[in-house]
Amino acid sequence: MTLQGPPTLVLENGLILCDPSTSEPEIHSRTLISGDIIASLNTNEKINGSPQVVDCSNCLIIPGLVNCHVHSAMSMFRGLADDLPLETWLNQFIFPSEARHVSPEMVRLGSTLSTVEMALSGVTTVADAYFFMEEAALAVIDVGLRAVIAQGVLDVPTPDAKDQGAWKERALDFFESVPSHPNITPALFCHSPYLCQPGTYTSAAQICKSNDVKLFSHVAETLTETKLIQTKYGVTPVELLNSSGVLDNSFVAVHCVHLTDRDVEILLDSQVGIVHCPESNMKLASGYARIQDLLDKGLNVGLGTDGAASNNNLDLFEEMRSASLLGKLVTRNPEAVNAMQVLTMATIGGARVLGLDKVIGTLSPGKQADIVVVDLSQPHLQPLYNPVSQLVYCARGSDVRDVVVAGKQIVRNRELCSVSYDDIRKQVLELAEKIASDTGKKLFQTQG
Amino acid sequence: MTLQGPPTLVLENGLILCDPSTSEPEIHSRTLISGDIIASLNTNEKINGSPQVVDCSNCLIIPGLVNCHVHSAMSMFRGLADDLPLETWLNQFIFPSEARHVSPEMVRLGSTLSTVEMALSGVTTVADAYFFMEEAALAVIDVGLRAVIAQGVLDVPTPDAKDQGAWKERALDFFESVPSHPNITPALFCHSPYLCQPGTYTSAAQICKSNDVKLFSHVAETLTETKLIQTKYGVTPVELLNSSGVLDNSFVAVHCVHLTDRDVEILLDSQVGIVHCPESNMKLASGYARIQDLLDKGLNVGLGTDGAASNNNLDLFEEMRSASLLGKLVTRNPEAVNAMQVLTMATIGGARVLGLDKVIGTLSPGKQADIVVVDLSQPHLQPLYNPVSQLVYCARGSDVRDVVVAGKQIVRNRELCSVSYDDIRKQVLELAEKIASDTGKKLFQTQG
Repeated sequence: MTLQGPPTLVLENGLILCDPSTSEPEIHSRTLISGDIIASLNTNEKINGSPQVVDCSNCLIIPGLVNCHVHSAMSMFRGLADDLPLETWLNQFIFPSEARHVSPEMVRLGSTLSTVEMALSGVTTVADAYFFMEEAALAVIDVGLRAVIAQGVLDVPTPDAKDQGAWKERALDFFESVPSHPNITPALFCHSPYLCQPGTYTSAAQICKSNDVKLFSHVAETLTETKLIQTKYGVTPVELLNSSGVLDNSFVAVHCVHLTDRDVEILLDSQVGIVHCPESNMKLASGYARIQDLLDKGLNVGLGTDGAASNNNLDLFEEMRSASLLGKLVTRNPEAVNAMQVLTMATIGGARVLGLDKVIGTLSPGKQADIVVVDLSQPHLQPLYNPVSQLVYCARGSDVRDVVVAGKQIVRNRELCSVSYDDIRKQVLELAEKIASDTGKKLFQTQG
Repeated sequence: MTLQGPPTLVLENGLILCDPSTSEPEIHSRTLISGDIIASLNTNEKINGSPQVVDCSNCLIIPGLVNCHVHSAMSMFRGLADDLPLETWLNQFIFPSEARHVSPEMVRLGSTLSTVEMALSGVTTVADAYFFMEEAALAVIDVGLRAVIAQGVLDVPTPDAKDQGAWKERALDFFESVPSHPNITPALFCHSPYLCQPGTYTSAAQICKSNDVKLFSHVAETLTETKLIQTKYGVTPVELLNSSGVLDNSFVAVHCVHLTDRDVEILLDSQVGIVHCPESNMKLASGYARIQDLLDKGLNVGLGTDGAASNNNLDLFEEMRSASLLGKLVTRNPEAVNAMQVLTMATIGGARVLGLDKVIGTLSPGKQADIVVVDLSQPHLQPLYNPVSQLVYCARGSDVRDVVVAGKQIVRNRELCSVSYDDIRKQVLELAEKIASDTGKKLFQTQG
């Protein structure tokens, strides 16, 4: 946190929703940002200095959205293979493309593309998990977002740890080499109980503990996984992780689609953070997570888009809507997973899962100034009886007008301030040409 | 159809997808539009006259989207009541608000707002069902879309037929007074088997037959409905309608969530058109329709957003994505309801349901020039390995750049050409103030 000086940025007019979990949208006279922090809300105090002033008339000001699970670099594979059985998708397309094309350069470029996409649609913090994650951190720093950058851990060879078991050296090296930056928090990501032995989880958890960071993992995503773990170990994936001693409040379990009642008890008792990825679970036909039940029991739940190879976009507005609609359908209850609950998951809930709830997730004086300004004037958002309902059930990522991260304006009037998208797109096209030709696909050119 | 003269509009560059049910996107040199019709595709012929030329570089040109079910005027109630049990939603909010506020002026205004929203997000044809439908027709004509305008029929009193049984006179009057316009096709809409007696369906079907138009109805939307009909008549809603003799290829059954195998046989044999509204069915927790099964059996299926009071937006891109994701989830099959199938439902499939497949639904010389140009250059749509996948799984309504209906440009560079949204919004705010205060809600003002 920066020492509070005169305001550097002032948001005027518009509605503001400071904490979706407890408050209602209201009119504040002014929001003052000083350096990277929120200095004061609803103030009429005389403004010293000459800060930038942003008029938010016709807009709703909300805490920046938190995307708790993505594989950013995989936007390079977006749309390469859809509508396929999971095994065909993975074995014929994703794994071979990863083996051939995942490199530091690819991770930097794909992560930049994804970070730009997320910034433009109101995500201010992202938890990203993949390989060569120093590069992902650099991409996030370039674009100006905040991120938890989780280096991938698998027992099998990976693009950046080609020998079996080399993950450990790579992980230790990662903590040494990941850029030190106030917006970047490192972490590890054990792929899944079927691609990491219990011993791997234990070692990875020890490394995370000694660095005071989070350990992420896909958990109980598919029935194939739960059956495989049951056959191999005679327990559920959650029970397996529990008996390995890795489940506590520094563990983040992604997906959690197939949980027994006992699994839910374990997750609750051990204060594990949960990430719900409804669209990925639907598109890959994995199933649906019992989110209303988890929320009722008091678990911390955040939202994630998952990677662009499986979702296929990284729009958290869409993910909020899908979480709510799916939650209502599967409980046969139109009151379930309501608009306030999903907006909470997408902001302070996600911040809690990532261990960043003291820093971000609500608009409070002293917290980091991670703020999104949503334009509510368009026809699909009128009339405005209920701003939260409108955000969740009607808004699109493209309704985000301005984005501020750590007090810096990253998006202004729907345009990036930090990097040139044209340059990025040129590089993306070049690499995509190679990926397409290696996969026997063509890359569509829309020019001429 | 207009006699073919020199081209009046030329689309150049970009990819074109002429028929999502049979073709792949390809590069065409030029698309020529003459008056209201598509004159030629992929032509290099010398251009006579001085037509308007639209550069579609970086874009995908597709047939205009067909929204097969909406209650346009209900956008005036958008967000008034969400996350509530169906009975509370209907009895405490929707029915009282309709009783107090549905008037010719309200229908004109709400329908204009909805038509503007749909135009901006690439819908060129809409099947609208409500009351005072002459006004809805005028709204569509103002904005420049194409519509099937279905006058509501209920046994109970309605805003425009206040005496029990007055629906018939009102319906006959509607066919006399609905504006005669090449873009407007009239129809009737029997609300549902629980609000219309079998005799009402029979009479309405006779009126429709004598006018050679469609009869729409909500059918088998909720378990409450199927139980009620079972208790009252001892049959399913589809069986009830079948025994009333109204099911044939001029009948359009909306929702079809709770169907028995026998119901599916009846619908197939009688060539009834089906409208799938996945987001409405999810949000109201009604259930899910067996769409892949219906498609496999050869039924005609279109897509509908339903009204803004239950969805809450009218974005058919979102509806396509939800149809696919839901279809995969409920069949536990990631190959189900694929991108081509949903884009087909949203174009030529919907056109078939509405009986307009000889006029619209594909880009073919001689058909009406109803065309949507989608900008594919944004970060969430790159790289472009599969344009159809990108449209269905990544695109938003806001990616629609240009919209042409009957050869006229309705949307140009994401701006309306036909009406002033500022004027409409002012009127919407005025009426919404009244609706809010009558409902004990407040209308949020985002200014100042």
